Amino acid sequence: MKVLITGAAGFIGRYVAAEFSMAGHEVSAFDVARPADSSLTWVRGDFTQLDDIVTATEGMDAVCHVGAIGDVNLAFADPPLAAAVNVTGTANVLEAAIRAGVKRFVYASTWEVYGPPQYQPVDESHPCAPDHPYNITKLSGDLLTQSYREFKGLDTVCLRLGTAYGVGMRDTAVLPAFIRRASQGRPVTLFGSGEQFRQFTHASDIARGFRLAAENEQPEPTYNLVAHEQVSIAQVAEFVGRHIPIEIDRQPPRVGDVSPAVISSAAAEHDLGWHAQVEFAKGAEELLAVYASDRQG
Amino acid sequence: MKVLITGAAGFIGRYVAAEFSMAGHEVSAFDVARPADSSLTWVRGDFTQLDDIVTATEGMDAVCHVGAIGDVNLAFADPPLAAAVNVTGTANVLEAAIRAGVKRFVYASTWEVYGPPQYQPVDESHPCAPDHPYNITKLSGDLLTQSYREFKGLDTVCLRLGTAYGVGMRDTAVLPAFIRRASQGRPVTLFGSGEQFRQFTHASDIARGFRLAAENEQPEPTYNLVAHEQVSIAQVAEFVGRHIPIEIDRQPPRVGDVSPAVISSAAAEHDLGWHAQVEFAKGAEELLAVYASDRQG
Repeated sequence: MKVLITGAAGFIGRYVAAEFSMAGHEVSAFDVARPADSSLTWVRGDFTQLDDIVTATEGMDAVCHVGAIGDVNLAFADPPLAAAVNVTGTANVLEAAIRAGVKRFVYASTWEVYGPPQYQPVDESHPCAPDHPYNITKLSGDLLTQSYREFKGLDTVCLRLGTAYGVGMRDTAVLPAFIRRASQGRPVTLFGSGEQFRQFTHASDIARGFRLAAENEQPEPTYNLVAHEQVSIAQVAEFVGRHIPIEIDRQPPRVGDVSPAVISSAAAEHDLGWHAQVEFAKGAEELLAVYASDRQG
Repeated sequence: MKVLITGAAGFIGRYVAAEFSMAGHEVSAFDVARPADSSLTWVRGDFTQLDDIVTATEGMDAVCHVGAIGDVNLAFADPPLAAAVNVTGTANVLEAAIRAGVKRFVYASTWEVYGPPQYQPVDESHPCAPDHPYNITKLSGDLLTQSYREFKGLDTVCLRLGTAYGVGMRDTAVLPAFIRRASQGRPVTLFGSGEQFRQFTHASDIARGFRLAAENEQPEPTYNLVAHEQVSIAQVAEFVGRHIPIEIDRQPPRVGDVSPAVISSAAAEHDLGWHAQVEFAKGAEELLAVYASDRQG
């Protein structure tokens, strides 16, 4: 299929683009920035501009809308920017998809749309009550995507992704930040007890989920796409410490940090045949190796 | 207090501006359009432009953010516009409020953020799961407002308004549309059973709620502001028919119409001392009188 991938030069987007390319699909890599992989067809554009995305979507069979303000700290500091990109931008991409008559639209949502868990494991029918600007804007895009499915006949899927990690990730995120600081002999900061866990989900697993969702005949409107394994922040520090000497600085809980919740991906496993394949230790070792070679380079 | 009212030339905004003025507050009527009431201080501006609203908010004690794409049909037809105004625009107004250090921010939300009722009467802790683009964008503004309260120390209140009506309302809404069509001898359309009810809440009651919320010492983050009285669409037609001969055209339920829910405003009654005072029959007669004088004029 001809698939347009927004944010294709970004962290998750480049994995999604690679996944579709390797499976033989024809990828248009839509981004304001040039993707690192020069074998991709780069479609330069900005989806906050309706005309850009409408033009780029013509003739496509599917759209994977991965592009967003994905840096939660930036979204927190600048909610108008997060709203413009993650909400208005998503509405633009949906509008472009409906005008182009695409057969499938896959949206990158997040497990964090749920907010504090009312029951666990959290499945797709759990209420959504986020409080962080990043998660509020991602929920808004998720609900708009469902609205286009319900009322406008666009065939959509929202994938509520686990905490993504992998080579190429933003280096302010917890795992690379710990690796970097430890490498520099600086202490790493644990906010709160350090017991708060995340279900780290490797970007290659997420990318496969996008392809399975795009290829599936009759998907549900929403799927959690979250690896089973729970890794606490203290365990992340411990893991890094096994490879690089690490000093830990304990601080009170940080404002805006999302509380952990056990997320179930049983529906994606059943309907899409999706299973996370990369264990945290393996994915984290890849990252460590990259940082080690960077230091030598 | 010095209060900035966004959307002050619009239907609800002009009632809110009048309410604050009559109570002796100093009103800045912010809108792209000139308010009909020439005694108001018009601050011309567009809150989708951050600079406009930042400048206008300087020196204010309070902000009532009423401005929005309030036409649900327009929001349905053009979700990117609804997102730009109702979400990004609201983020801009919040940002302006925090920069100006205002002491109270009141946001015009809607009862329709709840979506299909899971229990009734619906109170403020009911989950929010809207599916219509208008309601999705209004919920996003509501959650962003709460986020600024929780994380950025802005003193905010979200008022989840009942179905607003009154003289000056958009004449595509059900009550004026029925009056207009009946006056022209054209049939009025009832979608579905006509049993679906709304808790019509007069714009003057809503306006008083804004003032009470702005003046209250320690309001909760969210309040329903919805009149008790339940009036079905069939009853609206019957009411109009008592004054003007009316012919009814029955049609299947309309896509996107929000299902009725009984909404409780017990918290606003208790904390703010707010009670809806205008009965539907009285408010609707005012509207009938205006349309009758329009026909003679």
